[in-house]
Amino acid sequence: MPQGKPTHVPADGLTTRQRRNRPLLLVHTGQMKGKSTAAFGLALRAWTAGMPIGVFQFVKSAKWRVGEENALRALGELHERTGQGAPVTWHKMGEGWSWIQRGDQADHAADALEGWRQIQRDLAEERYKFYVLDEFTYPMKWGWVDVDEVVDTLAGRPGFQHVVITGRDAHPRLVEAADLVAELTKIKHPMDAGQKGQKGIEW
Amino acid sequence: MPQGKPTHVPADGLTTRQRRNRPLLLVHTGQMKGKSTAAFGLALRAWTAGMPIGVFQFVKSAKWRVGEENALRALGELHERTGQGAPVTWHKMGEGWSWIQRGDQADHAADALEGWRQIQRDLAEERYKFYVLDEFTYPMKWGWVDVDEVVDTLAGRPGFQHVVITGRDAHPRLVEAADLVAELTKIKHPMDAGQKGQKGIEW
Repeated sequence: MPQGKPTHVPADGLTTRQRRNRPLLLVHTGQMKGKSTAAFGLALRAWTAGMPIGVFQFVKSAKWRVGEENALRALGELHERTGQGAPVTWHKMGEGWSWIQRGDQADHAADALEGWRQIQRDLAEERYKFYVLDEFTYPMKWGWVDVDEVVDTLAGRPGFQHVVITGRDAHPRLVEAADLVAELTKIKHPMDAGQKGQKGIEW
Repeated sequence: MPQGKPTHVPADGLTTRQRRNRPLLLVHTGQMKGKSTAAFGLALRAWTAGMPIGVFQFVKSAKWRVGEENALRALGELHERTGQGAPVTWHKMGEGWSWIQRGDQADHAADALEGWRQIQRDLAEERYKFYVLDEFTYPMKWGWVDVDEVVDTLAGRPGFQHVVITGRDAHPRLVEAADLVAELTKIKHPMDAGQKGQKGIEW
């Protein structure tokens, strides 16, 4: 909203412009669906602003994000063809990360850690300007990825890189480190009325 | 989430498929930013599912949605050229609705009502399958548009048309009529730390 004004101006020695142009760590958490959808909505803004987008999905099945994936990939292809917007790169753990030669059995803990290692490399190289780490709260919760390492890496990331992390039960240290934390709260959901998910809405 | 299961199955005589394929009225409300962004994220799914999208923005300034607008318009143009996805139509009250020859002075109450009248016509003609009525809670709150008329029109809309309404202070009768109500709650926001909005994130 255009009316948004800072509630106070901190004595951090930064100009408004410097403060404005700080890269952000955003966390979308809460019990409600829509956390990832909101993150992908934000990616639309990043795309328009010309920020290269990197999506890392820490989910077992890719089916439930296919709507956003397909549309954002289309925007990425549009960029390749016309220069509009920004490139979009989409990585999925569920099918095995594309940069890894998968062995025999899937090991979710190892896969998640591999995903995080790639994110670390990409952050160090400043490969994207807008990262979506979809459902990344779970590998942290389950101990597959070290929370302190995540927080330290994000705090020390170079250059100008926004990061959005989605998922329930965001770790308190992640919440503390974040610039913005949005919680999605369910007031009412069709599944309460016995309705199952449907195409175009749930995926 | 794939794990989502109805908490109970209602005795409404519908099969699961019939119940699944019911058009939904969704409300994104709460004090947090991101309500509209989440709605536009949902529009990505609708686009992929081939549902024609109609956006009606009941906001004075269009500047703050330009990121989403630009990206979704690009998807609409992609559809026109390649047949991928679905058409996207974007209406803005702030610049005068495109279907109206603007007179001299802007009258926000009259403009809002004109917007709602067009939505009524479009619903009656089943022009779109996915409507975003962005910031539409305010014209209802301010009495520019009659709440009962909105609820009745939406309840009686023909065919298969999803409607998402965003904005703070959703009227209780609208909440009652909705299939899904999501509230965005602020846990932490950069503006609290004296940071102003920035391109690619706030617009």
